[in-house]
Amino acid sequence: MARPLLWMVDGLRSNMRGSGSSPTPRVVVIGAGFGGLAAVRGLKHARLDVTLIDRRNHHLFQPLLYQVATAALSPADIAAPIRAILRRQRNVRVMLGDVIGVDRVERRVHLASGAQVEYDWLIVATGATHSYFGRDDWAGHAPGIKSIEDATAVRRKILLALERAETEGDKRRRDALLTFVVIGGGPTGVEMAGAIAELAHRSVNDEFRSITPHCSKVILVNLAPRLLEGFPQELSESARRDLVRLGVEVRNSTAVEDLGPDWVIAGGQRIATHTMIWAAGVKASSAADWLQCSADRIGRVFVDKFLHPAGDQRIFVLGDTAHFHDSDGAILPGIAPVAKQQGAHSARMIMAVCSGRSEKPFWYRHYGSLATIGRNHAVADLGWLRVRGILAWLIWSTVHVYFLANFRNRLLVGLNLAWNYLTFGRHARLIVGDIALHESPHPYPVTGD
Amino acid sequence: MARPLLWMVDGLRSNMRGSGSSPTPRVVVIGAGFGGLAAVRGLKHARLDVTLIDRRNHHLFQPLLYQVATAALSPADIAAPIRAILRRQRNVRVMLGDVIGVDRVERRVHLASGAQVEYDWLIVATGATHSYFGRDDWAGHAPGIKSIEDATAVRRKILLALERAETEGDKRRRDALLTFVVIGGGPTGVEMAGAIAELAHRSVNDEFRSITPHCSKVILVNLAPRLLEGFPQELSESARRDLVRLGVEVRNSTAVEDLGPDWVIAGGQRIATHTMIWAAGVKASSAADWLQCSADRIGRVFVDKFLHPAGDQRIFVLGDTAHFHDSDGAILPGIAPVAKQQGAHSARMIMAVCSGRSEKPFWYRHYGSLATIGRNHAVADLGWLRVRGILAWLIWSTVHVYFLANFRNRLLVGLNLAWNYLTFGRHARLIVGDIALHESPHPYPVTGD
Repeated sequence: MARPLLWMVDGLRSNMRGSGSSPTPRVVVIGAGFGGLAAVRGLKHARLDVTLIDRRNHHLFQPLLYQVATAALSPADIAAPIRAILRRQRNVRVMLGDVIGVDRVERRVHLASGAQVEYDWLIVATGATHSYFGRDDWAGHAPGIKSIEDATAVRRKILLALERAETEGDKRRRDALLTFVVIGGGPTGVEMAGAIAELAHRSVNDEFRSITPHCSKVILVNLAPRLLEGFPQELSESARRDLVRLGVEVRNSTAVEDLGPDWVIAGGQRIATHTMIWAAGVKASSAADWLQCSADRIGRVFVDKFLHPAGDQRIFVLGDTAHFHDSDGAILPGIAPVAKQQGAHSARMIMAVCSGRSEKPFWYRHYGSLATIGRNHAVADLGWLRVRGILAWLIWSTVHVYFLANFRNRLLVGLNLAWNYLTFGRHARLIVGDIALHESPHPYPVTGD
Repeated sequence: MARPLLWMVDGLRSNMRGSGSSPTPRVVVIGAGFGGLAAVRGLKHARLDVTLIDRRNHHLFQPLLYQVATAALSPADIAAPIRAILRRQRNVRVMLGDVIGVDRVERRVHLASGAQVEYDWLIVATGATHSYFGRDDWAGHAPGIKSIEDATAVRRKILLALERAETEGDKRRRDALLTFVVIGGGPTGVEMAGAIAELAHRSVNDEFRSITPHCSKVILVNLAPRLLEGFPQELSESARRDLVRLGVEVRNSTAVEDLGPDWVIAGGQRIATHTMIWAAGVKASSAADWLQCSADRIGRVFVDKFLHPAGDQRIFVLGDTAHFHDSDGAILPGIAPVAKQQGAHSARMIMAVCSGRSEKPFWYRHYGSLATIGRNHAVADLGWLRVRGILAWLIWSTVHVYFLANFRNRLLVGLNLAWNYLTFGRHARLIVGDIALHESPHPYPVTGD
């Protein structure tokens, strides 16, 4: 029965506003990522009832997820409970829930639990997930990194591979265990490749007795002719040099033809490996299905210059879920600053319309692009300034720490970055869970007889 | 083929000692908890080959595990990779492996992978697990906290219960979701009950809109007539008062008769609850089976005053796995200081025997007992001194931070303790994973019609 839930919400509202006044407009925000959170915060002082729905109870700082995957940070260092972030914002209620549909006529959001939430305005900021270009069977062998579970699963794979290699007597099997393949040459792929190389080559320097840092091989497979295609040529080249110096084998202009549990065929060559990480493609969340709106081939909802889909002025679609053309005709990329600016814009527009003013189109302001390679190198393209090396890394660190959700995260990540810089240590190296439960499909028994 | 593995180890040894000298004695330690790690560290300067085997890749500081379960700490704050801890000890090799048996005649340890490891001396320090007094069907409904997976699973249970209660329209179901039952009145039970009470009553004060701190009920069910039976009467009473002040309902002299997925019958009364935590009984690991030695009714191996089982002078059994009588005839409890002292003793005895000296019996020195209640109260029994309240909590904090495995953990836990003290915050409040995958058996749909 939806009525109990709506009754509770209505009851809450009448408590909040007293009797006899006009109904408070209701804004529902789906997704507590960068876009959704920026929208909610933008409505902080508005006389509105805001409901924020997410499938998770925490806001995740995705740009640093690769550090969880390579055991440099703990999950809680880059995630903050949504309720804690919004504790002081009295006009918002947070709901943990799974959205399964939107009724645009009745203006209701449907949840998996059966509950329904009514809206006057709806903001959809549900992000993106991995795309395997039609080969979804690859997902089990080459996971991506978009959530904490993804990151800790990859971490586990990497660490278990090293542990197994330590006691593996057969050289071919050992080499396969110590071969790590990252697929994708954008910032995520570059960051992962650099971090794995450091983990496998340096952090474990003293700690293993059989395997040595030189036993491991990290291969970065990139379809494009150069890494970081969105960056200027010189910074791409700088990133490539830094990766090679870390011991990464960079294969540009190389396509993945097929892959299986312990092999990948890239550029016509078969590589034996137990750890493949996917950083090569994304597709939008299911928002287009919920809204019954037109979308591009990776599922992003087409929106106009006001961020509305299909002319529905009560709905905003933001961030990675949206297909938005800027004035040059370019599609805005799926990066955090885009989502944040769109979230803030949506909030301002809702308040404007409530006050009787008209909407303005969204205009994105690009401040720069950053990508890090290893623990102390980066490339930064700030438009008027291009920086590389350690200076770029300092900028990268400062920006990332600054934009974390709360002080505690900033403190912990700041400490960790400093610590890892000084010690090479990757101290969040936990393999959680029973090792037998996750035995590779090709165990390597060393039997006695 | 065990031969490749043994060959690798032998090869390593000949590299280490050159040719022509007598074989270096081999010590195998099973378990990298307090006992095993103390033993390995005690052999730091010995001319021995030490192999440390554990099912996990990390050493876990168990006394603070309840803080992971109540979202005050992250797993990596209290765990450290074993290889990192022992990085500088050149005579030890670390193996991730699952022991399945010991051949005392051939002096070999058998692993699940099929590998075999030979020993001249064997130290078994494999700890304990939960016991449900024959009712193993209770384990699924009332988990205990002995590993990181246990702790994060309990954390998830508690946080999901609060989230579900927030949107639950039916009062009876909501009350059941907000009822938390801890079973067991020893230090673990007391610490868990206090921490859950703080989480449910205070940390979530501002963050939920429907449920309030007063909605939650925490019940501590204790079979014994008083809490903390091993402590002096006055400190038991102090702990009880502190718990009551935190809002915990303490039921002493109360037995659990039966329990199910969402109910427990204790002291003849049925309690509707979704979160039950077991802190009431332990049993030893499978060591007695491996060693084919006699054991007590909870599986602890009987050892003599030299820590040897069944007169086998090549084997030491330590810690929670061992049944050891001190000079008063009392069985040593399963606490960290016992395991540590026994581990250090075993190491000294091995070195003594290698040098031609004779063994000495083990003698335990008890420094005191500590238990904490909530974020700033504790009880401390130091024999000559009994302390309670905030002063005891400062002692507890200092001791626990001091005994953490490495500086990084000490820094993080120290910061967290200070932070939680000041802010009531429990910031490691992550629910990881798909909420739908772990739907309770009695979902509470709020359906629309």
